[in-house]
This record gives sequence, C-alpha cells and structure tokens, in this order.
Amino acid sequence: MRQPKIVIVGGVATGPKAAARARRCCPDAEITVIERGRLISYGSCGLPLFLSGTLGGIDELRRTPSGVLRDEEFFKAVKNVNVLTGTEACRIDRDKKEVEVRELATGRQFKLPYDRLVLATGAEPVKLPVPGNDLPGVYNLHHPEEAIALKAWLEEKKVDQVAIIGAGLIGLEVADALASPRRKVVLIEKEDQVLPSLLDKEMAELLLKRLRQRRVEVRLSAKVQAFQAGGGGELEKVLTAEGEVPARVAVVAAGVRPNVKLAEEAGLEIGRTGAIAVNAYLQTSDPEIYAGGDCVENYHLVSGKQVYAPMASTANKHGRVIGTNITGGKEKFPGVLGTTVLQAFEVNIGRTGLTEREARELGYDVVTAVVPSTDAAHYHPLHGAVVLKVVADARSGKLLGAQAVGSGEVVKRIDVLATALGLGGKIDDMGYLDLGYAPVFATPLDVSLHAVNVLRNKRDGLVKGIAAGELRARMAAGEALTLLDVRSPGEFAARRFDDPRVLHIPLGNLRQRIGEIPRDREIVTICELGVRAYEAAIILQGEGIQKVTILDGGLEAWPFDLAIV
Amino acid sequence: MRQPKIVIVGGVATGPKAAARARRCCPDAEITVIERGRLISYGSCGLPLFLSGTLGGIDELRRTPSGVLRDEEFFKAVKNVNVLTGTEACRIDRDKKEVEVRELATGRQFKLPYDRLVLATGAEPVKLPVPGNDLPGVYNLHHPEEAIALKAWLEEKKVDQVAIIGAGLIGLEVADALASPRRKVVLIEKEDQVLPSLLDKEMAELLLKRLRQRRVEVRLSAKVQAFQAGGGGELEKVLTAEGEVPARVAVVAAGVRPNVKLAEEAGLEIGRTGAIAVNAYLQTSDPEIYAGGDCVENYHLVSGKQVYAPMASTANKHGRVIGTNITGGKEKFPGVLGTTVLQAFEVNIGRTGLTEREARELGYDVVTAVVPSTDAAHYHPLHGAVVLKVVADARSGKLLGAQAVGSGEVVKRIDVLATALGLGGKIDDMGYLDLGYAPVFATPLDVSLHAVNVLRNKRDGLVKGIAAGELRARMAAGEALTLLDVRSPGEFAARRFDDPRVLHIPLGNLRQRIGEIPRDREIVTICELGVRAYEAAIILQGEGIQKVTILDGGLEAWPFDLAIV
Repeated sequence: MRQPKIVIVGGVATGPKAAARARRCCPDAEITVIERGRLISYGSCGLPLFLSGTLGGIDELRRTPSGVLRDEEFFKAVKNVNVLTGTEACRIDRDKKEVEVRELATGRQFKLPYDRLVLATGAEPVKLPVPGNDLPGVYNLHHPEEAIALKAWLEEKKVDQVAIIGAGLIGLEVADALASPRRKVVLIEKEDQVLPSLLDKEMAELLLKRLRQRRVEVRLSAKVQAFQAGGGGELEKVLTAEGEVPARVAVVAAGVRPNVKLAEEAGLEIGRTGAIAVNAYLQTSDPEIYAGGDCVENYHLVSGKQVYAPMASTANKHGRVIGTNITGGKEKFPGVLGTTVLQAFEVNIGRTGLTEREARELGYDVVTAVVPSTDAAHYHPLHGAVVLKVVADARSGKLLGAQAVGSGEVVKRIDVLATALGLGGKIDDMGYLDLGYAPVFATPLDVSLHAVNVLRNKRDGLVKGIAAGELRARMAAGEALTLLDVRSPGEFAARRFDDPRVLHIPLGNLRQRIGEIPRDREIVTICELGVRAYEAAIILQGEGIQKVTILDGGLEAWPFDLAIV
Repeated sequence: MRQPKIVIVGGVATGPKAAARARRCCPDAEITVIERGRLISYGSCGLPLFLSGTLGGIDELRRTPSGVLRDEEFFKAVKNVNVLTGTEACRIDRDKKEVEVRELATGRQFKLPYDRLVLATGAEPVKLPVPGNDLPGVYNLHHPEEAIALKAWLEEKKVDQVAIIGAGLIGLEVADALASPRRKVVLIEKEDQVLPSLLDKEMAELLLKRLRQRRVEVRLSAKVQAFQAGGGGELEKVLTAEGEVPARVAVVAAGVRPNVKLAEEAGLEIGRTGAIAVNAYLQTSDPEIYAGGDCVENYHLVSGKQVYAPMASTANKHGRVIGTNITGGKEKFPGVLGTTVLQAFEVNIGRTGLTEREARELGYDVVTAVVPSTDAAHYHPLHGAVVLKVVADARSGKLLGAQAVGSGEVVKRIDVLATALGLGGKIDDMGYLDLGYAPVFATPLDVSLHAVNVLRNKRDGLVKGIAAGELRARMAAGEALTLLDVRSPGEFAARRFDDPRVLHIPLGNLRQRIGEIPRDREIVTICELGVRAYEAAIILQGEGIQKVTILDGGLEAWPFDLAIV
C-alpha cells in the first residue's frame, strides 16, 4: 500500500509507540494520533513519584531521555506524526473506514479516513458507587491533571489525614508517597489482605507487618459505604461498615476498567474479561482495526486463558507490535505473565505467573516453596532480605509462578523466573542455571535457583513443608504437634514461639539429644531461614522418625504473632 | 548399598557441599572430607572484601548465615561428616578403592577405603615464571592465609604503591579493594584490554575509561619480566618490557590452573583444557570417582565445547549434583555459560555466553547490538546507566551472549539473558518477555528486551550499525564519511567529535534540512544513546538516502577520545 493512512485513537503509551514504530517501518505512511486529553505520551507510572516530590515537576514524565518534551510539535518534527489533542473519537464507520472525531474545545466534528485503525483507548479508574464519591477531597490518580490537583490540594489544605481506598499496587505506591510523620495514612481494602490480586496471603502478611511498622493503618475486609463532607462541603471522613475513618483527602485506587465504548459501538468483539478481544497480531475482530494497551485483554502464557492485566510495559510492547503490523509486518505478541513489581515503604515486591491460589483454582497439582534468603552473600554488610515463593505443577514439572517480598533485590529474581516462565521453563531445567555470582550480588546458589531446588525436593518427597498459615491454624486448633526449634540459644532467647509445644534443641546438639524427641506425634522443625530446619528434618528422618514437617520459610517468613496458643 | 563409604578430597565449596547433600540424601553414609589446608568451607570470593576492610575479619567468610563457624566440629555435629584438615591425599588405588592420605603435621600415612570418591581438589594460582616471584611483597590471593598475610604486610609496611599483575576479575576486585587516595595502584595486563577473557574490547574500553577517572594506572600489552628487590630484600619494583613500575607489593592475579595431579596419577582422563574430564553426572572416566569445582572442565551450553571456567557458583552446584549422585541419585549438571559478574570502582560488570570475538572464532553468523540505557525510568532521580551488548547468530536466531557495563543494575540484565541462554532462547521469542516494570526498577521496555529487538532489526536489515572501534578505524583511515550528529545544540556544544566530517542537525530539524545531507557518501548517524540516531537513519532512508549507518551505542558507549582525525 502506498502511503497508507493510519489513525491511532489514544495518545499515551500504546498510541505514540505504535505511531513511532509505524514511522520507522514505513517512511511514507500518513499517521494521525487522536487524544481526548491535553497531554500525550506521559509516563503515568511516575505519578506517585510526582506526588512524593521525587520528581521536580510533572513535565519530567513527558520528556525523552535527552530532555525533549514529547508534545505535538515533537511528534510532528521528529516522527512526522500528526497529533490532535483535545479531540475525541466519537464513532467508527467500519464500512467507509472512517473515524468521526470531535474537537472538544470548539465542538467541530470531522471525519478521518483510515486504511488501518488503532484503538489505544486505555482504561478509566473504577469509581466507587457510593454517596459523596465526587466530594472535594476525593481523588483518583490516573491522569496527570488529577495528580497535580491532588498535590495542590494536599499542600493548600495542609492535609494531615489521608484515606486510600484499595491496597493494590497504586494504593500502596500512593500510601508510600503520602505517608509521613506529619501525615497519617489509612489504607482501606475490601479483601482480607493487601495486594489481593498480586500475592498469596502469607506473602501479603509479610508486607502488612512492614506497613504496620511504618505506622500505616491498614483496614482489611473493610467496605466503603460513603464519603462524608464536613461543614465546608469538603471531605471529612470515609464511612465503612467497620467504622469511620477521618480523612480530608481520599484517593480511590480501586482498579481500572477498559475503555471499550468506541469498540463496542463499532461492533468489535469484546472478550469475557470485558476488554477488547484481539488475536496474537493484536487485531480486533475487524482485521483492519488493531487494539492494544489497557483497553484489550491478553493471553496468559501460563494459564492459557484470556486475562485483563493492564500494564504500562505491556502497553508499550503492544505499540511496537501494532506499529510493525499496520505497516505490513507480521509480529506476534506472545502474551503476558501478569508480572508486577513495585516498591513501597522500602520494601520491594514482585510476582510473575500464577499465585498458589490461582494455580489451585485452575486445578494444577500444586507444589510450593517459601524460601527466605539474603540477596547477596550473608557476610556482605550491604545484603538485603528476600523471601521468595515459587509455585509449580508437580505433574508436568512446569514452573507456574513466583512471588517475592523483601528489602533486597527482589525484582532480579522475579525477572529471572519471568524469563523462565516466558520460555516455558520446567523446574528440572532450572536448578543449575548459570546466573551471575559475586558476593555483592548474590549467594553462590542464588535464591531463585535454591527455591526451585527446594520445590524439586518437595515434589520428590525428600521433605515435607507446612505453610505458616496452615501451621498457625493447626496449632490454634490444639493439635498435639511438637515445634522443634533448632536455632542457637541466643536466637531462641531473643524471639521464639510462645507455646508449650515448643522444644528447643540447637541443631548442633540434635544428634546427641535425639532421645528427647517424642515419637508419638508430628514434629515440625523450625529455624530462622528454613535451612537448619531442613537439616534437622533429615537428621530425624535418618533416625527413623518419619512424621517430620518443615516450617516453610522459617521464622523469617512467619508473618503472624509468635504467640500461637 | 548399606552405609556407603564416601571419601571427598577437598574441603572448600564443592567438597563440603557434596558432603552436606550426600548426608541429606543418605542418612547412614559414612562421609569423610580430607583437606590439605587448615580451614574448610570458606567463601573465597569474599577475600577482596576482607582486604578492603568491608568485612570485620576473615572468619566471617567461614560462618553460616546464622553465625555458626563451619569448622570440623560443625560438620561432625550437624552433618555427621568427618573432616580431616591438614591432611593430604597422596594416591588413589582404584583397584583396591582406597585413598592413601598423609597427616601433614605428623607425617603419619594411612588408607581410606571408599565406595565413592569425590575429587574437589580445586585450582592453584598461576605463578609467573620470572625472577623474584617469591620475594617478600609478592602475593597471590587464593587462600585466606595469603589474604591475611597481605593485609598485615600492607599495614605494617605502610605500602602506598601496589602493582597488580593481571586485569581479570580478581585483579580488578583487588585493585578496587586496595586503591585509595593514599595508595597508588598500577594494573599490569599482558593483553591489550582489561578483562580480556570476559569482555569484547569496546566494552572493556568503557571500563578502562572509568579506571582512569579513578586514577588507577593501567598498563596494557605489558609483560612482567621480573620482580626486583630493594636494599632490604623486599619488593621494590616490577620490571616489564615497557618500563618499570615502583611497587612495594605486587599481587599476582594471572589466572588459576586446575589441580589434577592426583587424578592424572590415578590414570583418570584429563580433558583438552587440562582439567579433569567429567560427564553430565560429574563422573570421571572411573564411574566410581566423581569430580567437581575448579579442578574439572565444563560443558559450555552455547558453544557445545568443553571449557575451563572455574567459578564458585558452579563449584557449589557441582557439589549438589555430586552429593545426589554418590548416594544413588541421577542428577545431571547441564553445563555453564561462563556467566561472570563483578563490581569494581562503583561499576557493575557482567557477561554471559559468548563474546562477539568468541562467536566469530566459532564461525557463527554474528549479529550484535550495543545499547546504552538507564536501568530505571530516566526521570527517576536514582537511575543508573547500563551499556548492554548482545550477540546472536543470524542464521539460527539463537542468542549467543551478552555483556554489560555500567553504574546501574547490570547484573539483573545479565541474569535475565543467562536464563534465556540456559533455556535455549531465540531472539524472536525474547523481544516481549514479561519482565517487571516500575519506574524505580526498569524502563517500560527493559534494556535487555530493547537490545534484543535492536538485534532483530539489524538481522532483518531494517538498520545497519557500526561498532565504535570500526568507525574509529575508518575515520582514522581518512574515509569520506559524514558524521551526522542529531543531538540538541546544548548537547553538541558540551561534547562532540572533533572532526571536520561532523555535520550537526538536531533531530527535530532534520526533515526540514534534509537538503543539507550529502548524497555522495555514507552517513553515520550519531546521538547520545542511539535512539535518535536510529530515528535519523529512518528519516534519511525514507528520503531515499540508502547508505546510512548508526553508531552502535551512541556517544554514551563511545569508549575512545572524541578527537578522531
């Protein structure tokens, strides 16, 4: 096609990326980007950094690495792409291959003919359907304008009490940005854990412990019923079924919904997730219309199902794939793993693939391991902590997912495991990957490999683990277990389970004192990181004691109080 | 086999790990470890940290994460493993299945019968065959005793001039540990680059730039001829063919050689690399004798050849595999990628797989990309720099290797690419891996993926790149090229090629000023990071200018002076 006409609806992430890539692949295409808002091509994931004051100003999110503002003139001059901001796409005429658009400022309507149309209409934040949801003081954090307004309001009103609705990724990032010794932050979450769609509960509990250390109040299983104004008509408190939360600002971070109206009205297929359905080439049900970014659903590489998993990185990749394909290329987008990483309150958090809960719901023969480790050699003074959970299918040996939480280099391990997941890795092929080792960067057998090998041990029946949550439940139910703590006297004195079922024998003395181990009940071996508990279990099994279980992750990964009874 | 007798020769890394794993797999095995030295199971990679004062004392390298000293008593009490230190294995009688050993202190000799024997005899540092190589002041850094002696000597003699022979991994780590404003360090390397066995030359040049900024003197292509004593009989200078280097301490870091004497005398097969030959189960040519760690050669997963690549991480993995197999298991060690990472002078360095040079020598159809990037969103104030080079085979599409240098998170990218290499990844399957993205951790399309996509563009002929070294050579030869610098006026004013062939047109003006581009010669487009040069090449190609080449990696990765003529 000579000079194909390309129209792209949406000027953030997918849209500009598709335009730039299309230009690279096709010098003579006519490319037009339509954006409803005033700004294009900004890094929306940086809004919490703007809020926290880490960035000098919001424009930093709009610049290229060399400092040039990515505005309409930039796109025209550098990429020969026409950008129409403040312009809405109202209707697609698929027969005539035209988009009806409207200039918001003037109301002027006109039509843009296309050979290829790209829908990158993004998503909108979910608005809570409760009274007062548009009171002054109630904010979303989706567009730069909202972030600017919120920041100004916080400063102008000297707000010292903030409620955040939703303890997902955005909720936690915003909590981190706004919490300070002078400003109390309350996180309100309707599920019974933080990061409910990202982490299994025991991993979330580790984070919760940290949030509470940092004096962030977290209200779980709490449902917002209304936002209530004070005398001045501005937000004064958030009402929940479990009590009220005084707050002069509320940030609603309750997830996003794909913008599919334009696609739906044009008769394009909408998937079961509610987002636009696309094939591997990111074509919609109309092969001349492509869609990508937060408005589409994705193929999940592990489950094989379509999922709604909006992510800036995915949106960017979609743009590249679309830009290639609308100019005659044939590039496939393979799918996603739901990889998500964040940093909040100096804790790094990540997950990729399926959680244990998701894997169980999908019917896999689940085997898991929770492994705490240092991210560097334990003798390196700058080491940080990582607690890594890995999930696999015992039947097929396929790795299914991973989650990690800690002060240390969590994301590297998530990326390694995401790479393995993306390439279909099996745990038996992963135990000896040749990862980089130096004391400052890793342990000789990196935690990502160690965790995989623990999984393999468990699958092969060499050891049996018990999850923290299960042990707590069984202890609370009064089961006659023995908690064999094999740490040193010093460690034991400093911190231990406060329960009469505890028996303390340091690992080094266990072989001599083997006679003290009761043989009529299950022994749960316990240490700090899980390694000595593993050794202890091996010793007990070697002595013919067969009902032995290791506390997964040791005390380091124990997310609850130590008083069990 | 009831109570198999296991004898392990070598008490560091592979040996103790094999013993521990064997005990876990087989509670009733009789396990004996023989170690010639006084200490066992220390983290030898931490010796530079001890030298630099980062560690409190050398014993920190001998402790478990919970602080217990890994000495003979520890191995006996916790693992029921007998450790004989100060004991040398003199001979193996394969027919009788006995090892003859000798207590070094008493000279007492005795025999240890075995069902399974493990050789973990490690390596010894190469001693330079030059006069004075045993003068007081000339050190290796292989055993803890040497590190202790070196540190004491440095302090006692108030040494302010140190020569390091060999600019490999150990040489650089030691240089970093010892250099200070009060102590001059001179690195002497016989090859024409630093890290000659790890990096391609242009990547090494980036590091060299940094070393010189930090006032480390680096003498390349310099061969040591002698160590010369002063009046007191102690080292005073190092003599090379290129002049002398005053130094009161010299650290020889010229590589290591596998200890194979015991194996060789027992008639076991030695590989072409000079190290002990083993199969995937780490069995030597005698199936009842296993070997692992620094004394064996490894299968290279990319080249398919046997290589000598001693690494603490590999030694550790070998121990696990051997411990499994000598107790009836059937575990394979898949092989290595030569992954190596280090930190020196606040620069992180890594490589995995083959370098370009190695790939060319092996006859691959080599395509490469050099991509500079930030390791986090460029707008995040704490971002660091990464220059990543990737190497692939154009014919098969297989990734062959990667190298990275920079102040930023280099190792994560190396680990991601090592994981892909280890699982046989092809570049067409890697461009859209679902890696973790948040502004603090990565760019939306992480540099590891971006680099792979640049490789794909190059393989597909979309763009043509020129390596820094090649451009410099062609410019120096007087070729009539045009160097089209498309950076901003500010960037250009601050730093630019000092050459009359430079033409400066900022990218944003290139379309209007296209008439200024000469059409009778090759155009090399240049920017800071390579992205704008890529855009510029696309614009030129779109205007019918076909001989366009992009400077790989831009000025950020340009390792030479800017004056070319």
